[in-house]
Amino acid sequence: MNFGVIRKVIGKMMYLFGFLMLLPLVVCLCYQETLKNYLSFLIPAFALIISGLLLNIGKSNPKMQAREGFVIVGLSWLILSLFGSFPLLISGYYPNFFDAFFEITSGFTTTGASITVESVLNELLISGHSILFWRSFSHWIGGMGILVFILAIIPESNEGSAVHILRAESPGPTVGRLVSKMKASSRILYLIYIVLTLVEVIMLWAGPHHEMDLFSSLVYAFGTAGTGGFAITTISVEAYSAYYQYVIGAFMLIFGINFTMYYLLLIGKGKEIFKNEEVRWYLIIVGAAIVIVFLSMYSTFNNIEETFRLSFFQVSSIISTTGFSTANFAEWKPLAQITLVILMLVGSCAGSTAGGIKVSRIVLLFKSCFSKIKSMVNPRKVETIKMNKQPVNDSTLNSVHSFFVIYIFLVLLFAVIISIDGFDFTTNLTASIACISNIGPGLGAVGPYGSYVDFSNISKLFLSIEMIAGRLELLPILIIFSPATWMKH
Amino acid sequence: MNFGVIRKVIGKMMYLFGFLMLLPLVVCLCYQETLKNYLSFLIPAFALIISGLLLNIGKSNPKMQAREGFVIVGLSWLILSLFGSFPLLISGYYPNFFDAFFEITSGFTTTGASITVESVLNELLISGHSILFWRSFSHWIGGMGILVFILAIIPESNEGSAVHILRAESPGPTVGRLVSKMKASSRILYLIYIVLTLVEVIMLWAGPHHEMDLFSSLVYAFGTAGTGGFAITTISVEAYSAYYQYVIGAFMLIFGINFTMYYLLLIGKGKEIFKNEEVRWYLIIVGAAIVIVFLSMYSTFNNIEETFRLSFFQVSSIISTTGFSTANFAEWKPLAQITLVILMLVGSCAGSTAGGIKVSRIVLLFKSCFSKIKSMVNPRKVETIKMNKQPVNDSTLNSVHSFFVIYIFLVLLFAVIISIDGFDFTTNLTASIACISNIGPGLGAVGPYGSYVDFSNISKLFLSIEMIAGRLELLPILIIFSPATWMKH
Repeated sequence: MNFGVIRKVIGKMMYLFGFLMLLPLVVCLCYQETLKNYLSFLIPAFALIISGLLLNIGKSNPKMQAREGFVIVGLSWLILSLFGSFPLLISGYYPNFFDAFFEITSGFTTTGASITVESVLNELLISGHSILFWRSFSHWIGGMGILVFILAIIPESNEGSAVHILRAESPGPTVGRLVSKMKASSRILYLIYIVLTLVEVIMLWAGPHHEMDLFSSLVYAFGTAGTGGFAITTISVEAYSAYYQYVIGAFMLIFGINFTMYYLLLIGKGKEIFKNEEVRWYLIIVGAAIVIVFLSMYSTFNNIEETFRLSFFQVSSIISTTGFSTANFAEWKPLAQITLVILMLVGSCAGSTAGGIKVSRIVLLFKSCFSKIKSMVNPRKVETIKMNKQPVNDSTLNSVHSFFVIYIFLVLLFAVIISIDGFDFTTNLTASIACISNIGPGLGAVGPYGSYVDFSNISKLFLSIEMIAGRLELLPILIIFSPATWMKH
Repeated sequence: MNFGVIRKVIGKMMYLFGFLMLLPLVVCLCYQETLKNYLSFLIPAFALIISGLLLNIGKSNPKMQAREGFVIVGLSWLILSLFGSFPLLISGYYPNFFDAFFEITSGFTTTGASITVESVLNELLISGHSILFWRSFSHWIGGMGILVFILAIIPESNEGSAVHILRAESPGPTVGRLVSKMKASSRILYLIYIVLTLVEVIMLWAGPHHEMDLFSSLVYAFGTAGTGGFAITTISVEAYSAYYQYVIGAFMLIFGINFTMYYLLLIGKGKEIFKNEEVRWYLIIVGAAIVIVFLSMYSTFNNIEETFRLSFFQVSSIISTTGFSTANFAEWKPLAQITLVILMLVGSCAGSTAGGIKVSRIVLLFKSCFSKIKSMVNPRKVETIKMNKQPVNDSTLNSVHSFFVIYIFLVLLFAVIISIDGFDFTTNLTASIACISNIGPGLGAVGPYGSYVDFSNISKLFLSIEMIAGRLELLPILIIFSPATWMKH
């Protein structure tokens, strides 16, 4: 293990992250907040900048392999969540460390599971806009990956090593390069991300009856872009009229699609998008789920437009792993509920900001199962599994299978751990799924209008780790918690 | 596809099964039951014998490949469940076809999920002992596999083909041959099965205070040996005192172990048993689960012996996929509940009468996941996965992974289908798990003292198919429902 390069990259990350933490000071200024709020950001920001600079001192061998990549990514996210929680703690709105850590980890991992109860939210809306901004801004930072951001600004000379960081952090079974240079690719991705976010901000801000001011528009756009889901009302997006629900619903779907598609659109190859198998299946799954939820809920709402809007919004929110809601689906019909739970596991497209197992993996799993059955019937006919008309090699299939197995094992493991607190089976199982898939709300006590606040501190800590594990697609977290990593080789 | 051999083997199976159906007539005689009860068995038995003989007419090419094996096994179980339900229907105790089919499929697949409500059970205890006997006898027939039974009596000349039937039906990732001849192996397995069942019958019949007569002893021994779980009281084994609970609890664990181990014991190689990795892990899982359940339930029962007995019995019942109960664990603490649900998925050893994913598969999945993580940390060190000190080849690992994926997909698929009926999430999910793993009781409305009676007919039909799919380890049922099987090759 090359600890030198790990130290250096983490140092640089902390340094840059420190500067990002100064941004909420603008909000403090706009809302004329108390000195305490300023200090809540200034203290951890300086701590980050100084520690970052200190870690960066000295020379190190820049050589990096996969394992260093995983360790850097895993440790970075733990460190960021730790420092990211300090503004919440210092400001005093979240006096318990575990609550603050849970909330901001939920932010960075774009989960949106919240322990903010109504009274705290009301206080924040009076005197803590900067904290609310920070909470939602963490979605936006986390959505694209903090390290991808760093990649966009590191010197070109270090490209060879950067690929390991990108591989360890990027969602999805394969990392596609848009253009030959890694740096250029991540810059393009960031640009698309920023432009799409701005379009949403404008569409929300300019909406009918001005239901959202600039601050609210930013909060909801950050939550949508990062597929996070923190809201600033206790009833999430139900607090806004149909126009806002449709806009946010549509953008959630948009942010669930592989960003490469928008690049194709940019360079005039828009037709390619519908040739992409993952996108096609994503849209088919969304369509099918809306139909199932619509049919099962129509008798309850008895209004075509309303039933469609609620089905569309909830499906879009869950499959994109955002977690905004416009209805308490924890009290919906069982068929609608289980459909949403399955969407939680599925997640969106690889290369998007969303979590979950990812549509491409699910499609590959289905294909390999069908090919298995066919090969039993007809052992002589060997069939190659293809994706986007390209054959998929055995090692990729193997990784996808392992990923699925570990995913299910971890869902069950964390569900067992939090069961000690005494919540019911549905709550524990869906809380575990909602955290690993970075959704936020589940069913039962952690439903859209429920909260994670009543879990014990230990459970909150474990769920925080589960959120990071899910966000980083398991391996980085498994690797940093594996003794083999820290033994001398 | 060689339809000739399929026709012949199924014919023979129906013919022999017809004779097995005459056995409950002895019970009719003992309890001096009505003519209707006699006819309930005589009519379908003759139908089976005559159809069997007719199907057997003519010559056929005895050559068989894997796909014929799968089709024979899949079709046989569907046909047996169909004919097996006729005594229940004709006798009039179960007037609905879907109920009768569900109940007897649950019997043959050794699931033990029941739709027999208290009033019907009371009627049966007055005038329908033969039906109760048939219901539990179906566990015993199904436990060892109807086709293994046929194997034990088919002519030696057909050995080469027989292996495909055995492979298609036998539980577990590998089919171990005890002795060189398939026929001899299955005869030894049957002998062990019969002897163990008899020992249990005697231990129950001779128990203190004579709480069980010969009939009850037979019913519970059949239910234990087949890892089925049909009881003849509404509160299952809770109706009997501690001695009976310990005896049944211990025998459930015994029938969850690979029968090859008892053969090793017979030939004086008892030490080998503890060298077997699957058995070792099985006992470790049982021990760990008992500790977890004990710790989570001690505060409720406040009595060491009682808490231990209840924990031991429930763990033993669930991991062996039997489904007897001595407590309503659907109302136990969440930690105990989720532990039991995970045991439902795990199941027992390959080569036993139990269902579930099987301990050996779970162990292999864990090993391959750990090896995956290690290979990420240290890409140069290639590690071979071993089981019982033998290297496991990639194709076996591949099959195990596929099996797990299909298992989870089917659990979710059937849970979605039955969700239409409107039961809650916990009920639907655990009902689906309890059926595919051949347990019987789940949580919620299908808990130990609940019932499957309130599901719709469609759901009962789907759950019946799920039970067969689980019993035959998925492939035969997937293959007979796959269009590719029936296309000309």
